[in-house]
Amino acid sequence: MNFASDNVYGVHPKVLGALAAANEGTAPSYGGDVYTAQAEEKLKEVFGCDLRAFLVTSGTAANGLALSALTPGYGAVICHAEAHIAVDECNSPELFTGGAKILGLPAQGGKITPALVEKTLKGFIRGEHDPKPKAVSLTNATELGTCYAPHEVKAMSELIRPRGMKLHMDGARIANALAGLGVTPAELTWKAGVDALSFGATKNGAMMLEAVIFFDLPLAEDFAYRRMRGGQLMSKSRYLGAQMLAYLEDELWLENARRANRLALRLRDGLRQAAAIRIPNPVEANEVFAIMPRGLYDRLLAAGAKFYDWMPDSLGDAIAPDEVFARFVLSFATPEEDVDDFLRLVAKG
Amino acid sequence: MNFASDNVYGVHPKVLGALAAANEGTAPSYGGDVYTAQAEEKLKEVFGCDLRAFLVTSGTAANGLALSALTPGYGAVICHAEAHIAVDECNSPELFTGGAKILGLPAQGGKITPALVEKTLKGFIRGEHDPKPKAVSLTNATELGTCYAPHEVKAMSELIRPRGMKLHMDGARIANALAGLGVTPAELTWKAGVDALSFGATKNGAMMLEAVIFFDLPLAEDFAYRRMRGGQLMSKSRYLGAQMLAYLEDELWLENARRANRLALRLRDGLRQAAAIRIPNPVEANEVFAIMPRGLYDRLLAAGAKFYDWMPDSLGDAIAPDEVFARFVLSFATPEEDVDDFLRLVAKG
Amino acid sequence: MNFASDNVYGVHPKVLGALAAANEGTAPSYGGDVYTAQAEEKLKEVFGCDLRAFLVTSGTAANGLALSALTPGYGAVICHAEAHIAVDECNSPELFTGGAKILGLPAQGGKITPALVEKTLKGFIRGEHDPKPKAVSLTNATELGTCYAPHEVKAMSELIRPRGMKLHMDGARIANALAGLGVTPAELTWKAGVDALSFGATKNGAMMLEAVIFFDLPLAEDFAYRRMRGGQLMSKSRYLGAQMLAYLEDELWLENARRANRLALRLRDGLRQAAAIRIPNPVEANEVFAIMPRGLYDRLLAAGAKFYDWMPDSLGDAIAPDEVFARFVLSFATPEEDVDDFLRLVAKG
Amino acid sequence: MNFASDNVYGVHPKVLGALAAANEGTAPSYGGDVYTAQAEEKLKEVFGCDLRAFLVTSGTAANGLALSALTPGYGAVICHAEAHIAVDECNSPELFTGGAKILGLPAQGGKITPALVEKTLKGFIRGEHDPKPKAVSLTNATELGTCYAPHEVKAMSELIRPRGMKLHMDGARIANALAGLGVTPAELTWKAGVDALSFGATKNGAMMLEAVIFFDLPLAEDFAYRRMRGGQLMSKSRYLGAQMLAYLEDELWLENARRANRLALRLRDGLRQAAAIRIPNPVEANEVFAIMPRGLYDRLLAAGAKFYDWMPDSLGDAIAPDEVFARFVLSFATPEEDVDDFLRLVAKG
Repeated sequence: MNFASDNVYGVHPKVLGALAAANEGTAPSYGGDVYTAQAEEKLKEVFGCDLRAFLVTSGTAANGLALSALTPGYGAVICHAEAHIAVDECNSPELFTGGAKILGLPAQGGKITPALVEKTLKGFIRGEHDPKPKAVSLTNATELGTCYAPHEVKAMSELIRPRGMKLHMDGARIANALAGLGVTPAELTWKAGVDALSFGATKNGAMMLEAVIFFDLPLAEDFAYRRMRGGQLMSKSRYLGAQMLAYLEDELWLENARRANRLALRLRDGLRQAAAIRIPNPVEANEVFAIMPRGLYDRLLAAGAKFYDWMPDSLGDAIAPDEVFARFVLSFATPEEDVDDFLRLVAKG
Repeated sequence: MNFASDNVYGVHPKVLGALAAANEGTAPSYGGDVYTAQAEEKLKEVFGCDLRAFLVTSGTAANGLALSALTPGYGAVICHAEAHIAVDECNSPELFTGGAKILGLPAQGGKITPALVEKTLKGFIRGEHDPKPKAVSLTNATELGTCYAPHEVKAMSELIRPRGMKLHMDGARIANALAGLGVTPAELTWKAGVDALSFGATKNGAMMLEAVIFFDLPLAEDFAYRRMRGGQLMSKSRYLGAQMLAYLEDELWLENARRANRLALRLRDGLRQAAAIRIPNPVEANEVFAIMPRGLYDRLLAAGAKFYDWMPDSLGDAIAPDEVFARFVLSFATPEEDVDDFLRLVAKG
Repeated sequence: MNFASDNVYGVHPKVLGALAAANEGTAPSYGGDVYTAQAEEKLKEVFGCDLRAFLVTSGTAANGLALSALTPGYGAVICHAEAHIAVDECNSPELFTGGAKILGLPAQGGKITPALVEKTLKGFIRGEHDPKPKAVSLTNATELGTCYAPHEVKAMSELIRPRGMKLHMDGARIANALAGLGVTPAELTWKAGVDALSFGATKNGAMMLEAVIFFDLPLAEDFAYRRMRGGQLMSKSRYLGAQMLAYLEDELWLENARRANRLALRLRDGLRQAAAIRIPNPVEANEVFAIMPRGLYDRLLAAGAKFYDWMPDSLGDAIAPDEVFARFVLSFATPEEDVDDFLRLVAKG
Repeated sequence: MNFASDNVYGVHPKVLGALAAANEGTAPSYGGDVYTAQAEEKLKEVFGCDLRAFLVTSGTAANGLALSALTPGYGAVICHAEAHIAVDECNSPELFTGGAKILGLPAQGGKITPALVEKTLKGFIRGEHDPKPKAVSLTNATELGTCYAPHEVKAMSELIRPRGMKLHMDGARIANALAGLGVTPAELTWKAGVDALSFGATKNGAMMLEAVIFFDLPLAEDFAYRRMRGGQLMSKSRYLGAQMLAYLEDELWLENARRANRLALRLRDGLRQAAAIRIPNPVEANEVFAIMPRGLYDRLLAAGAKFYDWMPDSLGDAIAPDEVFARFVLSFATPEEDVDDFLRLVAKG
């Protein structure tokens, strides 16, 4: 019963198999291999457009490097107060961007709105005394298990594009967002105005693999230099390309995400049966957040379940001091019986 | 006949097998897994001392992060003019150290001496108008196929330690150096005064795996933050730990290195038979450098052999305009017959 | 009637005279001159302790450079949400510190408390996923015209010192704080646990002059390098030293501050007579903040008075939509009759 | 007899007078004052073109900030091995550019040629493994007292402009170069292809004042942010503007430079009379370099003369071990009798 994160689970067998299959013979290093080239082609197919894709090994690196193409060091990136780039990456965006300001805005349910961003931008009235707003970053699916629908992404784009700002999407869980929303990759990204995407694969079945994808092609111009400088150009790059190919083939990635999302709904439905538990946000991807009494929380942990209590900042008064804001993350590999076993534990109280 | 680099070859089957074996069930993420812990313990055993080891995915990241613990942004790191940190990493050390100066000193055979470093340090007489010399970095085996013996490393340490400087070793090919020198890991590193080591595994049989190892333990104090900030803390960290365990088990790493080194000597011996070829440097690890007529070079490439011409800066007048300085890198996986086939080609002229 | 800032006024005649007096003959450059040396000695006398002082030309540089000695790039500096380092310096602290997080905490009256900082520190439970808290920065006098008394500074120091954190004071208006509190420089700084001080002089009568002062001497060790690297080592350094000597001589700096503070109280007393105006914070230095109807505000501006409306974030519900949060800054050089003329305008409504 | 540097002399009386004259009343801060605006207009007039000028307080800051607009952190700036940005600014260009590589090329007489730069660029064949060449920086007058003539500057521009690189001129002594060459400011800068200029004033009569001037206007777009972030936007900015106005008025700057250059020629002529002294480089500005026996050097110092021995790297075999490479810098304020007194000392041997 491990719901601590989707990254506690392993690699999908097909991805693992692809690593073994790629292991024969020699291959050009540093991104010159055919797997890497094919992976980029496959991503073009998946997104239905021209794009540039750069494979890296971690989501933090993907985000930092992507943002470094969107903002100079004197710029600001606006995001949700709980965004990974704001509070989970130990100043990594600051490192890669050369010191840009990551401005996290508090908002319920993990989502920021154009109205909120517009209000923030109106505060930037003092020229160079403020940093220059250069980008907005939306996490999709969000840190709170919700999703930005294409029209929401588009509305943000329409606000900031005329101001010369770029739109980044942190897609560490974009497969789950796509599965949850039932939209195409194109609809959720470039058609909605996304300029750069951190395309996550690790959490959803890969081993260590993310792609920085540019839909706004000029942003990619010098990105190979940025990736190299960031220590993210792998010498044996074929093993990144091979992971990506297996991950995308036959929609494995969407398959995985759908399964995780289904389990999330199953968990949500079960938790809703418990009188002591409230589900404050819609469950739109593979995460479930629940407010529960601390006593119950302690008993569940003691019974062997693994999950985290989360920062309740976004809840305001909706949580009492003796309550816990619990997070459950479902993975493509979470056993279904774990969900059922856990719900039985909850039912016992 | 691919001698372009050791990184054009794949992953050792035992390392690959370890990835599969580690794929069962759940594991704590972000370095909390048992593989990672065991890998650090195993490295203590291998080096015969207490140490702190941090696993990362690339050698460039290992170097940049290691150096960031040795020098502030106003510092200088002294190394050979052809060191990887000086000319192959696109300002990555500058990124991770916050702008430190990487001072490459020209010297024959890929090695800098204490005398050369001392002379350089004497030039730093103007206080803060110069950067502050903070570290020396030795690449071992060097970029030119030679090795620093323990007494050479120690002599460097004895020069700089009293000046408050730290000693880094870029061990992208440290296994080859150890195999070539016939010394123990302890003798070549901490016993010789090395404070921090980039311990390479990728080139010698791993998939993407290096370790930043601190023998000077206080340097490791905040290094977890540095690694995270550098985008190098893998969420599914078990796959780094598992690689390292397989790589070190039963001396696989040294076995691999010995094989590559043996092939290098075999190639060297064969090349020496050719009247048109000169071997300017001792072959002490898994690289062979040869001066050959451009005509021969072109014919060898045309015949399908893969290897690079190298910058001849260290040769001075020892190379003629119509000659090429060719580099051959041997891997644990290079087929022995490739060496023999290639030598036959050379013999044909 | 210019109350826009204290920096709209010029240089005190004595400081200007000192520049002329220092203009004779030659002087060693880059900080080697006697004026610079004497300025440091004079600061030791003023603060009654050993210290290291580094002269620079701007408060933003002083803050960024000082913080760079207190925190690495993976660290965090905690301050008030409206602190100059958080919102007025365009990512300058991020530049000089190599990307540290500047964490501004919202709080009324411009002051953060140990309780608030402690609560914040409790949120840093995830090791390297968060930045490492390295320093607290207190602005004194604050951005809202209030002051931290020595016991408040000391309480902050006692909270963070056991955690290995350092205490910085942004003393852009420290003379006004000292004058307002009626305490000695020693009492407000090192005796209260301040490790590093940005000692401002520009706003209070100098031309372009601030000092970074370290009471915690080891922090100063490599600071000369930091200042040089930051472009703040002036070649004709004597003109900084000479300013400082004149500024400190015969307590000119405190004299100037006392005058500015007196005018602030005079203005406050006058504004309090106006029924439409509320003074939300105590006036403890040379700034007065007043909540007034927008109509009145517009009329005052139209009548030629210069002052800014301020961000009302710290006021919460205490301000109505049709009200303005007006800031008035008094300078050593503000004509007394300007205050009286302005109060007459206010009285007219 | 102080020839240590031009910065050991003070401020020209007219510049000092301008500071006093600017001291009346209030003025908008942070660059909003009329002096600053007029200074930019005056610079347009002096250079005979549209431009953007940003005033700062030090040459190191001017260079670092200017370069930050020309190169990203993954870029390289090519310059002479003894350029100030390469060896005199303690990694300051690395700080402001976010870690760009400052590539100093050894060359005689302080000047690099298009041929040398072209050869260097040809070595950048490995894509992102190298930094991306983004700019060339020429110091004019050079560190060795020579000057780049307009046609030499233009030839460099014509080499690099088609490669997308920008041309920076470090004009810490540009007035001396103009006076020495007898050309107009326009001819030596924008007409010759200079994109950005560090326009020095401090060494030649100002107190602390340099301007970053962009002839390539788009480079200036966000420069106000860069200057602010670099701690170089002075609050009492009028005192920079006032210095610049006085410095440029009635060609004071060129007058000063002409006088310093005349003294340099006088010194050179005198030194040439001494059999034991050789003048290796042409004297084209306000610096004289002389090779002299160490014995003579010691006697001159003992007699009270102040000047530095310089790094003899550019001389190769042209200097013997018992000789010193002495540098003499002449200032607008150097007394003529000091030159004569010194030459008498030299004559005595």
